[in-house]
Amino acid sequence: MKISKAVITAASRKQRALPLQTLIDSDGIEKSVLTIIIEEVLRAGIQDICVVVCPGDESAYAAAVGPYAGGITFAQQTEPRGYGHAIACAGEFVGQEPFLHLVGDHLYVSEGATGCAQALVAMAETQQCAISAVQPSHESLLPYYGCVGGRRLPGTRELYEVEHVREKPTPTEAEQWLMVPGLRTGYYLCFFGMHVLTPTVLAILDELLRTSPSEAGVGLSDALALLPGRERYLAMESHGQRFDVGVKYGTLTAQLALALNGQDRDEVLTRLLTLLAHREGARR
Amino acid sequence: MKISKAVITAASRKQRALPLQTLIDSDGIEKSVLTIIIEEVLRAGIQDICVVVCPGDESAYAAAVGPYAGGITFAQQTEPRGYGHAIACAGEFVGQEPFLHLVGDHLYVSEGATGCAQALVAMAETQQCAISAVQPSHESLLPYYGCVGGRRLPGTRELYEVEHVREKPTPTEAEQWLMVPGLRTGYYLCFFGMHVLTPTVLAILDELLRTSPSEAGVGLSDALALLPGRERYLAMESHGQRFDVGVKYGTLTAQLALALNGQDRDEVLTRLLTLLAHREGARR
Repeated sequence: MKISKAVITAASRKQRALPLQTLIDSDGIEKSVLTIIIEEVLRAGIQDICVVVCPGDESAYAAAVGPYAGGITFAQQTEPRGYGHAIACAGEFVGQEPFLHLVGDHLYVSEGATGCAQALVAMAETQQCAISAVQPSHESLLPYYGCVGGRRLPGTRELYEVEHVREKPTPTEAEQWLMVPGLRTGYYLCFFGMHVLTPTVLAILDELLRTSPSEAGVGLSDALALLPGRERYLAMESHGQRFDVGVKYGTLTAQLALALNGQDRDEVLTRLLTLLAHREGARR
Repeated sequence: MKISKAVITAASRKQRALPLQTLIDSDGIEKSVLTIIIEEVLRAGIQDICVVVCPGDESAYAAAVGPYAGGITFAQQTEPRGYGHAIACAGEFVGQEPFLHLVGDHLYVSEGATGCAQALVAMAETQQCAISAVQPSHESLLPYYGCVGGRRLPGTRELYEVEHVREKPTPTEAEQWLMVPGLRTGYYLCFFGMHVLTPTVLAILDELLRTSPSEAGVGLSDALALLPGRERYLAMESHGQRFDVGVKYGTLTAQLALALNGQDRDEVLTRLLTLLAHREGARR
């Protein structure tokens, strides 16, 4: 199994300007959020990229990715039927191949030289199946994420066979379905916002969209919850950090993380300490 | 002398998107840079505001200031003849009155309850003359700012009678013209990016624009350098902080300063420490 396609969803009606925002990347160069995400995909060895957008956003997004625009296929999500529907809108682009999926409002910062998506794609190609990046997260974060339950794959340190998937579970649901032997008490495997998905996931999404009321949204977790019944589905612990730029202070936090992880670390730390010293002085 | 008008210059061809960028203000609310600057003006008791823009930018800028759009007069700078020319483009709006002037790519954070512009306007109304906000700045910063030379006004702690003005002076020029008795050695009074200007300044700008080649730019400092020969002109030390959002990491630094100065201080400090702890852990 070789992964050669990627789908980035950026069709949220509420956050159309987010992927266009510019940040300074770890290499010290100013880029749009969408460009930084595309470079994360390219680093994973994938050049064939589809961005799912609101109709009409194509030209602004193409302008925001500059030289990469030529390599991008745009797919339109013409009605707001949820995150799972947005991914399904890339069905024609994807065809019958597995694909990497990232969201258009998250930035990923890896700890070492290997990119987060790069590590996930390599593992999917080795394991020959769908795989979601996850991080052990405290139960206080359950209201924000999709979570998986399952068992550690024997002989590995960071792979899990997924048995259950729940979107934003309650603590009771989590205790019942999502406890993973070997994790710290009160910790669950929450989605990191990055998956390698298979044609089976798209087939399940199509079924859900056909059978649910036309005004209802369909989430990705709805489809992933059915996946373990159909085919092998793994989760892999990611050691990077993920930043949702759509939340309050999300851009600030992502920019700080990029800068502290990159070549301008010392310059930004100096600015930070100067600011803190000034404010402490003023408060005294 | 009552100051009732303000002119914000935002006509730089290179930085047209800057005033449209959004930041979270000290009050925790997301706003465009231009809105934050306009609120700085309103806090100084001034409601009659002119924004000088590149032709065609009016509608985007009006959209970016939301409810304040109705109170704003737009003036066009139709040719790129420099910063002084941009101010002169507001001549019709200003008429024969003194006015507050701010630049559209700087944010100001005051230390106390009084806004930076508010303090400057109050002093101009007391002193009845043109006045520039300045900060004692180390000579290493001379390449970035306009500077004034003069003498402290007797009986005051923060007012100076301006005798000389030089834009981005060399150290030699600074030593010759801009030494101010009473400042620390190696420090000069650099512009803070905020002025109360008089009709005389506009008259000098008009003279300079008429007598210089049509392709030449005219700076504000060119006009201010001639002002002490025509009328009383003061400088006032500002105790706030000023952030140029147009430089690298300018937006990041401004956002941090706003957050550290506001109601979300603890939340942002926590995020910062979490990031730093994570990176330090990863580097070990």
